[in-house]
Amino acid sequence: MKILVDAFGGDNSPVQIIQGAIDAVNARDGFTVVLVGKEDVIKEELKKYKFDASRVEIIHAPEVITCEEEPTVAIRKKPDSSLCVAFKELKENDEMKAFVSAGSTGAVLVGATLKLGRIKGVNRPALCPTLPTADDNQKVYLLDCGANADCKPINLVQFALMGTAYAEAQGIENPRVALLSNGTEDEKGNMLNHEVFPILKNLKGINFVGNIEGRDILNGKQDIVVTDGFAGNIALKSIEGAVGVVMKIIKQGIYSSTKAKIGGLFLKDTFGTIRNKLDYQNKGGALFIGVNKPVIKAHGSSTAETIMNTVFQAVDYAGFNIADKITEKLALYTPEV
Amino acid sequence: MKILVDAFGGDNSPVQIIQGAIDAVNARDGFTVVLVGKEDVIKEELKKYKFDASRVEIIHAPEVITCEEEPTVAIRKKPDSSLCVAFKELKENDEMKAFVSAGSTGAVLVGATLKLGRIKGVNRPALCPTLPTADDNQKVYLLDCGANADCKPINLVQFALMGTAYAEAQGIENPRVALLSNGTEDEKGNMLNHEVFPILKNLKGINFVGNIEGRDILNGKQDIVVTDGFAGNIALKSIEGAVGVVMKIIKQGIYSSTKAKIGGLFLKDTFGTIRNKLDYQNKGGALFIGVNKPVIKAHGSSTAETIMNTVFQAVDYAGFNIADKITEKLALYTPEV
Repeated sequence: MKILVDAFGGDNSPVQIIQGAIDAVNARDGFTVVLVGKEDVIKEELKKYKFDASRVEIIHAPEVITCEEEPTVAIRKKPDSSLCVAFKELKENDEMKAFVSAGSTGAVLVGATLKLGRIKGVNRPALCPTLPTADDNQKVYLLDCGANADCKPINLVQFALMGTAYAEAQGIENPRVALLSNGTEDEKGNMLNHEVFPILKNLKGINFVGNIEGRDILNGKQDIVVTDGFAGNIALKSIEGAVGVVMKIIKQGIYSSTKAKIGGLFLKDTFGTIRNKLDYQNKGGALFIGVNKPVIKAHGSSTAETIMNTVFQAVDYAGFNIADKITEKLALYTPEV
Repeated sequence: MKILVDAFGGDNSPVQIIQGAIDAVNARDGFTVVLVGKEDVIKEELKKYKFDASRVEIIHAPEVITCEEEPTVAIRKKPDSSLCVAFKELKENDEMKAFVSAGSTGAVLVGATLKLGRIKGVNRPALCPTLPTADDNQKVYLLDCGANADCKPINLVQFALMGTAYAEAQGIENPRVALLSNGTEDEKGNMLNHEVFPILKNLKGINFVGNIEGRDILNGKQDIVVTDGFAGNIALKSIEGAVGVVMKIIKQGIYSSTKAKIGGLFLKDTFGTIRNKLDYQNKGGALFIGVNKPVIKAHGSSTAETIMNTVFQAVDYAGFNIADKITEKLALYTPEV
């Protein structure tokens, strides 16, 4: 299987991206990475590393799309960008099984939708990160996290079905789906949720566990949290911000007295473990769920380690062969017209 | 000045509520607390404490509204509840300057709107907690946090103006107003935000600093964060949940090894300070901004300490005489019809 990697997307591209792709190849068997971008630069970078040359390919793409560019315009005007070339390959070449990029989120989403295309039956794809929970063995999908700022009921229903298809593909039996709301009672919600709730409640093929509040997202009591892209983005970023503030205050506290400094030294490993546990962005990217092949958006500030983990994630997702399963799931809900 | 306290609202009522009110009276001068609820029970509880009897009054209210009741129905059907009696007093008695309740959020909001009434010019009042930030001396208002799940542009614009009026009343010069969105760029947002952004940008009488993401809420770079009640509730609860999960993981980490346990002992005071810093709910309640007198909703699980702090907060807010200032601010924006 071949995994396309956007060598020219992200704050640390191309150096860290290429290093991450090579680290992935050196750490695990069973796939080839295809680096997309300026061939001369990639070739020069590759000289730094030892690796099995039969497992690393290059596809030349002379242009780069930056985060400052308007996504739709950039995708249209830069057919030779690493993003556009990668999506074309992904669409046309059966060997290419998935794509990893740390580039402009907007351009990745627009490019995936326009160039790669949606899975049959999908109304709107969604951006779906995997978050850690208080329970070590439990992860949670939060979707949509920003691809669709305004959603219709069918979108949230499809997010529930697509999330379920992915969770099932990962071996989670009867995955629990919750609807993010402003209260846990059935009657809570905004107008959108009021329409969605009864549909999810009566929908076959998902295990709907009801409304949850923002504070419940990480409690490990659901596998999938469904929401519109605006609220989902705010929830995700609010969680990130709160974790950052707590860690900052702890750091300030540790430096505040000699006693605290000693305590901090004894807890150094523990804090490392905690940081590692909470730093979900380092463990992989957000899946763009609903397009024809797995597209995974890694954080813009991705390091080589992140890219390595995201390549592993791409290999896993590619193995699920999910498109048919999603189409099958989506057939369970036909909106009344 | 007299502050009404709902003695029969909240998980720990009436015992902790009454204790908190008495603690407030014993800790600070300059106000009287008026306990509203079952007179015989309150009188019996008061026997436990020493206090200046001239500063504690009771108004009898035989009924109680619980969190399980539908707010609108409960407010209509229980005119003799502590909530309804308190709102009647607050409206009709000039001596009564503010109201504190740890009871049903829905019933407090509905009661305040229906019985006490909105300040002239206010379209929809908003629930507005004060959150801590990474910077010790900096607080941030987040509104609306749940009173209005679905908002129109005028609501968000008025939240910005009302928040500004409160911040100015507290001596904050030129308070910074941010719009919560799914990205910091001007063009980010859902349909609601797209309408609101240009209005805020051109509005005189506020200091609009643009869009912020969920991760920025606690960064201390704005005094007021404006959003609809659905997204605001999700942001607030997501922050709460994330803080809880981090503290839980730290606790697990500390118990994981002897070395970590020793570190934990040395850091005990530091963690206490951190918990205290982040536990904004213990420092007061959420102001219901836009009704005729200050109504402050304390958390349902409020202890005596929370109630004491919320009474202090009520005394402060009552001193602002905010209604006229809000009406004045709101006149700065007249929506085009």
